Amino acid sequence: MATYFLLLGALGLLYCSKLYSSILASVGFSVIGYVVTDFLIPRVSPSFVKIGLFGKDLNKPTQPVIPETIGAVASTVYIFIMMFCIPFIFFKEMVTTVGGGHRDLSQTENVNGGLFLHNKLSEFLSGLLCLETTTLIGIADDLFDLRWRHKFLLPAVAAIPLLVVYYVDFGVTYVLIPKFMRKWLNGKTNIDLGSIYYLYMASMSIFCPNSINILAGVNGLEVGQSIVLGVIALLNDILYLSIGPEVSHEAHRLSIILITPFIGVSLALFKWNRWPARVFVGDTYCYFAGMVFAVVGILGHFSKTMLLLFIPQIVNFIYSCPQLFGLVFCPRHRLPKLNEKDGKLYPSRADLIENPPKKVFVPVLYFLHFCKLIDLEFETKDNKTIIKSCSNMTIINLTLVWLGPMREDKLCNNILAIQFITGLLSVGIRHIIGTILFGTDNLHPITSN
Amino acid sequence: MATYFLLLGALGLLYCSKLYSSILASVGFSVIGYVVTDFLIPRVSPSFVKIGLFGKDLNKPTQPVIPETIGAVASTVYIFIMMFCIPFIFFKEMVTTVGGGHRDLSQTENVNGGLFLHNKLSEFLSGLLCLETTTLIGIADDLFDLRWRHKFLLPAVAAIPLLVVYYVDFGVTYVLIPKFMRKWLNGKTNIDLGSIYYLYMASMSIFCPNSINILAGVNGLEVGQSIVLGVIALLNDILYLSIGPEVSHEAHRLSIILITPFIGVSLALFKWNRWPARVFVGDTYCYFAGMVFAVVGILGHFSKTMLLLFIPQIVNFIYSCPQLFGLVFCPRHRLPKLNEKDGKLYPSRADLIENPPKKVFVPVLYFLHFCKLIDLEFETKDNKTIIKSCSNMTIINLTLVWLGPMREDKLCNNILAIQFITGLLSVGIRHIIGTILFGTDNLHPITSN
Repeated sequence: MATYFLLLGALGLLYCSKLYSSILASVGFSVIGYVVTDFLIPRVSPSFVKIGLFGKDLNKPTQPVIPETIGAVASTVYIFIMMFCIPFIFFKEMVTTVGGGHRDLSQTENVNGGLFLHNKLSEFLSGLLCLETTTLIGIADDLFDLRWRHKFLLPAVAAIPLLVVYYVDFGVTYVLIPKFMRKWLNGKTNIDLGSIYYLYMASMSIFCPNSINILAGVNGLEVGQSIVLGVIALLNDILYLSIGPEVSHEAHRLSIILITPFIGVSLALFKWNRWPARVFVGDTYCYFAGMVFAVVGILGHFSKTMLLLFIPQIVNFIYSCPQLFGLVFCPRHRLPKLNEKDGKLYPSRADLIENPPKKVFVPVLYFLHFCKLIDLEFETKDNKTIIKSCSNMTIINLTLVWLGPMREDKLCNNILAIQFITGLLSVGIRHIIGTILFGTDNLHPITSN
Repeated sequence: MATYFLLLGALGLLYCSKLYSSILASVGFSVIGYVVTDFLIPRVSPSFVKIGLFGKDLNKPTQPVIPETIGAVASTVYIFIMMFCIPFIFFKEMVTTVGGGHRDLSQTENVNGGLFLHNKLSEFLSGLLCLETTTLIGIADDLFDLRWRHKFLLPAVAAIPLLVVYYVDFGVTYVLIPKFMRKWLNGKTNIDLGSIYYLYMASMSIFCPNSINILAGVNGLEVGQSIVLGVIALLNDILYLSIGPEVSHEAHRLSIILITPFIGVSLALFKWNRWPARVFVGDTYCYFAGMVFAVVGILGHFSKTMLLLFIPQIVNFIYSCPQLFGLVFCPRHRLPKLNEKDGKLYPSRADLIENPPKKVFVPVLYFLHFCKLIDLEFETKDNKTIIKSCSNMTIINLTLVWLGPMREDKLCNNILAIQFITGLLSVGIRHIIGTILFGTDNLHPITSN
């Protein structure tokens, strides 16, 4: 089976190298990435356990010990594959512009061709560099359990090469102003954010890696959500490549080239990490996966569209805030709880009798309960009704509150389905609202997304 | 003290960012690299021991257990520093060519400026990417003890981005033909090696990392030899920048920018690794350090000069061959042996009675002994003289054979001194012989190194 895939990949590659299409090459490498990752995981897992990288799966009756940090295999395979990918991606330009560098500066077309090639090459290299640094940070975190304050800003450092290339290549730091606001701003159509825009991109490189790390704890969820994100981003790219203007093609081609092999290695990891998990992915994969989307969003100049895909993660973060900031008691683990009798997961709960919530927040809890955004348990004591406990505030628990207890794999699939639907909807709405707010819909990659 | 250095570095940085000189910036970052590495090593070492990264120092009477793989700290600090370095290095070009990319393609000067900036940027990024991948390989090796056949070719994969950028930027694959040979080749002055030249560069990226790994085993030697290599390379760069032609300046400026911060982090590591070692550097540092020189040699277009600096490592490898290829028995460890009475190191020996050498090699052993290139011990049995043992064939043991037993730190210093002198000599001879063989001396970076 694996050999069959490998053959298919090799054929795809041969085909693409003939046609000089970088997208076909990335599909070929995606298949190779799947095969290699799938081949390596069972073979290297024992070595991970041997050096102490393992963890207990708390949501199983037997709480088996399984290897941890296996996502590092997927990200390393990705990085090596992308190295091999470089000559294929740039084959066409490398052949048509015979050395854009120190040679042949006389011909202007050649200079432009060389410039184009170098733009693309430095973009690609900076993206890869950023991903590799993120992997290194993730491995350090998995090995040494870095503290939050140490690791929080590190992804932004990893993004420096990306921001420099952005500055050199595009330097576009203005955002469009919605039509209805223009009359108050003397008809200006855009506003230049200057260095704030770079701060925004740096924040994105911090947000994306961490947001995948937060929506976690169910077998297959970290990898699953990354695959869903990848698929939606690909659909958006295909939309642009088929009906978008010529000027946006290059950015979305780069996005496809970066995301397709990512989906390849992720699928192999998902095979081993889905319920019942035989490996854990570790922080390395979460950081790496999040950074893939930050890189694509920044280099492809659709960072704002990319953020829309992260709505479930953003909602999860906002929903978690009352517990994270201590308004409601936050137990150490907020994973759903296994009921060994029926094998189903139930929402885990925070005990609010021993740790009552801040008084100011009690009406909010009642309101959230009324809106079915939380599940409260009451107790009557001395004719007074008090809150006994509430379901923990993660969208994993919320899904269980809404849809009832279910087995771990079904829970994961449901969350992924919700994510897929919201993702598709937000991309759709983004194009419709874009047209209404800005007069024209995007599809001009530099100025308007 | 540390704060003083930090201040100095910060001042240097401010100064250089004012003058737009990338070399001053790299000196500033070198100081910062020293301070940060020196700050981190004692603080993270316990974490390394905790996850099992430690080793015994065999050449001490008490054989203390000390943290291993600490070189990973130095290489990680280097990589992060170089990220921060990017805007400083390219500040001048970034200011003078306002976005060489998608914008302002109309002005030809601007296009050329942008092209220059992009050349430099993609060179720099590919070098950094290569170094980071090498670090990742080194960490994997230190953690999992990779097998030789698995790790041997990996550095060449790490070098792919470098070779692609070389192809795109220069694509120069011909070498000059010495004057006296030209008459036999119809007066041709150079010969094009084509893809063989890329194979040669890939081999260099395999050779350099491994050669530092082989000349190891004495406290401080791995880091010390890397610092010596760095210093000689810097001297060569300064030579070119002061008396070399304009066309070679850019390459040697890049070399200085990459090597100066490397020396900074290495000095801090040396402080902790020199006799008596408080940390071990691990394979990570050896690979990383070797690759720094491979990167500089390839991107700076003086890979052949760079190889000259590796003469001690090359000699060490050739000298080791009889034992590596089984002509003479090779014990598991070939480190010098500590005599606890006088605290000095003595050459370790291979027992040749139980494991006699290949018969064909016996006269060679006698010859080497005659030339003082090996130390043989004889035994007379039944009126027949046979070889009892020989000193192990590494230049570490050879130094002890030549100069007599000595303490570990003195041994390290002697080897480093020999390396420094041969390095300086070979650079000097290279310039003299270059003039004789090729008619003109190098100093034209693309065609004649």
